[in-house]
Amino acid sequence: MNTTGATSGDERLPQPATADIDLVTVLHALGDPVRLTLLLSYSDDAEHSCDPRGLGLEHLHKSTVSHHMRVLREAGVTTTRVAGRNRFVRLRRADLDTRFPGLLDALLAAAAA
Amino acid sequence: MNTTGATSGDERLPQPATADIDLVTVLHALGDPVRLTLLLSYSDDAEHSCDPRGLGLEHLHKSTVSHHMRVLREAGVTTTRVAGRNRFVRLRRADLDTRFPGLLDALLAAAAA
Repeated sequence: MNTTGATSGDERLPQPATADIDLVTVLHALGDPVRLTLLLSYSDDAEHSCDPRGLGLEHLHKSTVSHHMRVLREAGVTTTRVAGRNRFVRLRRADLDTRFPGLLDALLAAAAA
Repeated sequence: MNTTGATSGDERLPQPATADIDLVTVLHALGDPVRLTLLLSYSDDAEHSCDPRGLGLEHLHKSTVSHHMRVLREAGVTTTRVAGRNRFVRLRRADLDTRFPGLLDALLAAAAA
């Protein structure tokens, strides 16, 4: 049984509190083609497994994709839920909208254009 | 007499055309504390000299500031006018607004917060 888990008993990997999300760190995290692709994948607000094949990143090694996911999570862009041996990633849309109003929508529109 | 100059006879340093401004490159350029500080300085839409003292960057070497200015210009964030031995930098607000609607305003609001 998890002692650090949420109601569901699942754990979350470390992430900054909303108030600690830093603009420079977010921009640096998103200033990379793979991570911007991940942002677009996560923009459906669903939880995504870490399997590169489900993210259109089949051409990258799993450890490379994991690295990019970690950068996004540590920047505060995503949250990662651990359920047993599985990890599920989701966009922190509400937190980003709170911290930087309008920024995420503008970024997603620009990235999708 | 300049052959590449604008009406005034001044030259511009190389910069991407508006349609070629790339989101990843812009985000990478702005994912740096000094360059984000420069963006805020340039947000008054005035031309600025390259003197670090006028930009609140007295603590940095002139060559370091020049490097950061070059990154911003090559990303398409700024334009640099050469007038004799002087260079003047200005934000490409209209070009950025055309390329990525809403993004610059959201970035400036977030950076100023």
